[in-house]
Amino acid sequence: MEIPTPLQTNGRLLLGPGPSDASPQVLRAMSSPLLGHLDPEFMQIMARVQAMLREAFRTSNPVTFPVSATGMAGMECCIVNLLEPGDRVVVFTLGFFGNRMVEVAGRTGAQVTVVEGPWGKEFSLEQIGEAIKKVRPKVVALVHAETSTGVLQGNMKEIGALCRDAGALLLVDAVTSLACVRLEVDAWGIDAVYSCSQKGLGCSPGLSPVSFSPRAVEVIKTRKTKVQSWYFDMTTVMSYWGQDRAYHHTGPISMVYGIHEGLRLVLEEGLENRWARHELNHRALRAGLECMGLEFTADRSCQLPQLNAVRVPAGVDDLAGRKYLLEKFGIEIGGGLGDFKGKVWRLGLMGQNSRPSVVLLALAALEQALTKQGVKLTPGGAVGAANAVYSQS
Amino acid sequence: MEIPTPLQTNGRLLLGPGPSDASPQVLRAMSSPLLGHLDPEFMQIMARVQAMLREAFRTSNPVTFPVSATGMAGMECCIVNLLEPGDRVVVFTLGFFGNRMVEVAGRTGAQVTVVEGPWGKEFSLEQIGEAIKKVRPKVVALVHAETSTGVLQGNMKEIGALCRDAGALLLVDAVTSLACVRLEVDAWGIDAVYSCSQKGLGCSPGLSPVSFSPRAVEVIKTRKTKVQSWYFDMTTVMSYWGQDRAYHHTGPISMVYGIHEGLRLVLEEGLENRWARHELNHRALRAGLECMGLEFTADRSCQLPQLNAVRVPAGVDDLAGRKYLLEKFGIEIGGGLGDFKGKVWRLGLMGQNSRPSVVLLALAALEQALTKQGVKLTPGGAVGAANAVYSQS
Repeated sequence: MEIPTPLQTNGRLLLGPGPSDASPQVLRAMSSPLLGHLDPEFMQIMARVQAMLREAFRTSNPVTFPVSATGMAGMECCIVNLLEPGDRVVVFTLGFFGNRMVEVAGRTGAQVTVVEGPWGKEFSLEQIGEAIKKVRPKVVALVHAETSTGVLQGNMKEIGALCRDAGALLLVDAVTSLACVRLEVDAWGIDAVYSCSQKGLGCSPGLSPVSFSPRAVEVIKTRKTKVQSWYFDMTTVMSYWGQDRAYHHTGPISMVYGIHEGLRLVLEEGLENRWARHELNHRALRAGLECMGLEFTADRSCQLPQLNAVRVPAGVDDLAGRKYLLEKFGIEIGGGLGDFKGKVWRLGLMGQNSRPSVVLLALAALEQALTKQGVKLTPGGAVGAANAVYSQS
Repeated sequence: MEIPTPLQTNGRLLLGPGPSDASPQVLRAMSSPLLGHLDPEFMQIMARVQAMLREAFRTSNPVTFPVSATGMAGMECCIVNLLEPGDRVVVFTLGFFGNRMVEVAGRTGAQVTVVEGPWGKEFSLEQIGEAIKKVRPKVVALVHAETSTGVLQGNMKEIGALCRDAGALLLVDAVTSLACVRLEVDAWGIDAVYSCSQKGLGCSPGLSPVSFSPRAVEVIKTRKTKVQSWYFDMTTVMSYWGQDRAYHHTGPISMVYGIHEGLRLVLEEGLENRWARHELNHRALRAGLECMGLEFTADRSCQLPQLNAVRVPAGVDDLAGRKYLLEKFGIEIGGGLGDFKGKVWRLGLMGQNSRPSVVLLALAALEQALTKQGVKLTPGGAVGAANAVYSQS
């Protein structure tokens, strides 16, 4: 075969559901020379990553670390460790990623009860309480920030209390919420949580931060059966990320360098500041999108700031619109998943991409793309609406 | 907490069993700005990675790609896809990593027959043929290059023929062999193979290249049960790396950039040249190690060039010796695993680290470390022995 030339890319402005752009500092950190995965210097880096991750998750759980694979692996890691054949689990699903949990849980031999809610809404406490009372599950699973619809599940503290009262473990998908919106693992009583590196943390995809409460760890340690996955088996992975630092698998050194820097930048900014920043830029984007007549798929009351899912306007072609943005501006936005395929665009403002210059450019480019497809818009209206939000803040 | 300062490391000279140092070009490629994991430009990069990987594996298997996790995940991916509950598998094990296969296979519900051979030797064709005849397995599994002992399993082509005659699939661990020694997936009749990024390919750890023969793919497609792991389920992962490029999980973009460059460098050098280079530098290292009286754990006839496992000399402290090399020279060598813990040192010369300057430095440093612990050596003898090999080549 002809040998390819060295890779050259200018990248994109990644405004889809993730990956978001990695911070330049993160990319620089990732290009540092390797250390061995059992090197004392690397052990210290691992310890610092764990300490920073606890801050980001707002937890004191000793078992907190990044799984050596992408976010979906974190989902599988949590599910296969907590569930054994015959266990009862309730999965509350409001979209594509809730359904993923159902699919993964179904492979454990557990009895999976699925509670489906309408896409675009969150669950009420009553709905959750009823299902828990009825099923009496070992594990309650739900998605904190559903990326397919842009919905934030609220009442997390109350849900945590319901689980505790019922003796159930609470498992939460925080893939899109970590470091974008408030997430309080300990205060909310979350027992197992997984996230990813390529959204709120501003890193490259390839790691899945997880955290397990002491209650969850106890459940894992007293399993009757072996965890079906060797790679994700916490009873042994914990030895590598725990006191022993015993060899389990070769840690992904460069990825760990990257998340070290990503977490550092998050803490340097401060979580509360970061959440407020995501909220402000969302409001500006929202004002612009609404000015162009775009409708959000989520109720306003449960709208995620970092993921804005809007319906593709009547008469506009989904693919042609996204292709225009990509080719003309190098801007990537996401299409719809599942029921929303072809009907929804998803605009992410995550991590470093949640900033005014990105919002203004995104709106200006979108105005051009829509106009190109015959939508009648007030020239510059969207940008003006966004600027009005900024000028009031 | 106090926020850590940005990560700074000078790295090491990584002469253990892996990771080996990543090439500077690979690290540079990894620091390129991100593309979306469904971006047309990224799709082309994926296609080139797959084409280059087929060359490196010497295969035309369409299903050839890097699993989005480390080498051990590749092992699990192959095993859980090929095996269903009740299936018969024979695992031939000559060390730590063969035993890992047994452990992982045991979690599938398959009937696992283990054939153990002595550490430091390879299996004879007779041993393998007998076991296959007796068990009549669906899958035969073995390690091509056993990293715990430094043993290369020979007669691979004949083993492949034995498997084919018996209607069994041949599964091979090539974690330490890919791009270091001859590996011929198609010519040897290998049906499933997994490797890693951080050894012969000179990349950072975090990917596990795999390849499945059409026979193996057929077996996976006609499974009666779902694959127990969702993350490693080839029936869906293949859609992302196949024609559809359908969303399965978020690909580890930067790692894929890295392996693109790593594979490019391998093909630029040429596989045959690369194998010869590993052989020559091994011979020089071996001459030096033997000059210092160090004994190899593997029989000479089946010694791997890229992984040299030698017994820690009597009176020498394992940990103190390795610590001396690390602190004084920044050189990492590996300790023993399993039965060899505390008794064996493992010196890897893999990828870019298989070169004369590394061999000479390693021998010189080792001479100092051993002398420090009271071993009587001819000053400069080891380096002289290595140079004699180079001068004859």
